[in-house]
Amino acid sequence: MVVLEVRTTKRCQLLEITDMVTGAIEESGVKNGIAVIYAPHTTAGIVINENADPSVEQDISMKLSKVVDERDPDYRHTEGNSDSHIKASIVGPSQSIIIQNGRPLLGTWQGIFLAEFDGPRPRKVFVKVIEG
Amino acid sequence: MVVLEVRTTKRCQLLEITDMVTGAIEESGVKNGIAVIYAPHTTAGIVINENADPSVEQDISMKLSKVVDERDPDYRHTEGNSDSHIKASIVGPSQSIIIQNGRPLLGTWQGIFLAEFDGPRPRKVFVKVIEG
Amino acid sequence: MVVLEVRTTKRCQLLEITDMVTGAIEESGVKNGIAVIYAPHTTAGIVINENADPSVEQDISMKLSKVVDERDPDYRHTEGNSDSHIKASIVGPSQSIIIQNGRPLLGTWQGIFLAEFDGPRPRKVFVKVIEG
Repeated sequence: MVVLEVRTTKRCQLLEITDMVTGAIEESGVKNGIAVIYAPHTTAGIVINENADPSVEQDISMKLSKVVDERDPDYRHTEGNSDSHIKASIVGPSQSIIIQNGRPLLGTWQGIFLAEFDGPRPRKVFVKVIEG
Repeated sequence: MVVLEVRTTKRCQLLEITDMVTGAIEESGVKNGIAVIYAPHTTAGIVINENADPSVEQDISMKLSKVVDERDPDYRHTEGNSDSHIKASIVGPSQSIIIQNGRPLLGTWQGIFLAEFDGPRPRKVFVKVIEG
Repeated sequence: MVVLEVRTTKRCQLLEITDMVTGAIEESGVKNGIAVIYAPHTTAGIVINENADPSVEQDISMKLSKVVDERDPDYRHTEGNSDSHIKASIVGPSQSIIIQNGRPLLGTWQGIFLAEFDGPRPRKVFVKVIEG
C-alpha cells in the first residue's frame, strides 16, 4: 500500500494525481489486477474525469458548490463546512481502477483527482494494488 | 462473504455500521487486502463520512433531500420514492476500503454508514474481503 | 478483462448491461470474488439501481439534469457538455460487485447500467474479475 501526500491550494479544487497513482502501481510490480484509490478524509474525495481542459475541473467544482451551497440556515454542524462533507459524500472516497500490463487502464481523457472541498490542506491518498 | 443485517428507523438516515464491518473483516482472518462494502438495495447506499459529530450525518441527509426533493411533478415512477432511487444512485451502492494488519484503514474521522433513503426498513450490507 | 461495447441512443440515458456483465463473469470461470465495473469515459458512468420499472431510470436521468442543468452562464468549458462531466463525476466511473457461485450477487431489484450523459455514442465498459 502506498500513501500519496499532496497539498491543495484552494477551498474547492480538483488536484490531479494520475502520475502519482501510475507511479505507485509501477512500484508495486503488479502487471494485472486492480487498484483501489482511497481518500481517508471526510471533506475530500476521489474524482476521475477529464484532465485535458482545466475548465472541466473548474466547472465540476463550481457547479457542486452551487448545488450544495456553503451557507444554508438548516445546517446544524457548527464548523461551517457541512457543504464539504456533503460534496465528499456525493463523489465518494473510493474508486477502483483496472491494471493492465503494469499500467492503469484509464480512458483516453480520464485523469484521477483528489477532490478537495475544504482546503487548502495537506491531504493523503491511499493506493492499494490487488493482483489478479 | 458476510451479510450484515440492520434496521433503519427513519425515511432518510445514515446508520453507522463501522463496528460491524470491522468485525466482519476480523472474522475473515485476512491481514492485508481490500473489502468491498455493498448495499443490495435500490433506495439505500453506502456513505463513508464523519462519525464524530452526528450533525454531519443529519446535514448530509437534509441537503440531499433539498437537492433531490421528494415531490416533483415530473417524476413518473408511481411509488412515491423516486427521490430515494436518485439519492441511492448519487451516493452509490459500493465502496472499497483497504485492510491493513487485519483492520479497516479508515481516516481518523471516517465512519461507514448505510445510507437509508426510503426507510424505516430492514436492510442488508454485504462485506466481501479480498486478500492481497 | 472483458470489454463490453454498447451504443446509447439519447443524450441522457441509463442503458442496462446486467446480462453482459453476468456473461463476462461466467466467461471468466471465477466462482467467488469481486468484479470491478469501469466506464473509461468522462461523460458517462456506472449506476446500479432498479431495472424493474423503466420510469425509475427516466426519473434518475431527468432529476440529475434538473439539478445539473445543461446551460449555466458560469460554465467555462466550451464544448457545451459541462453538465455531462459533472453528472459523470457524481455517479462515478467505477462500482464493485460481489461474485458468488459464479454469478453477480445483486439485490433483487438491482440492475447495472451504463449512465450516458452526452450521447448518443458508442461506449465501452470494462469488467475485471478478481478471484478471492
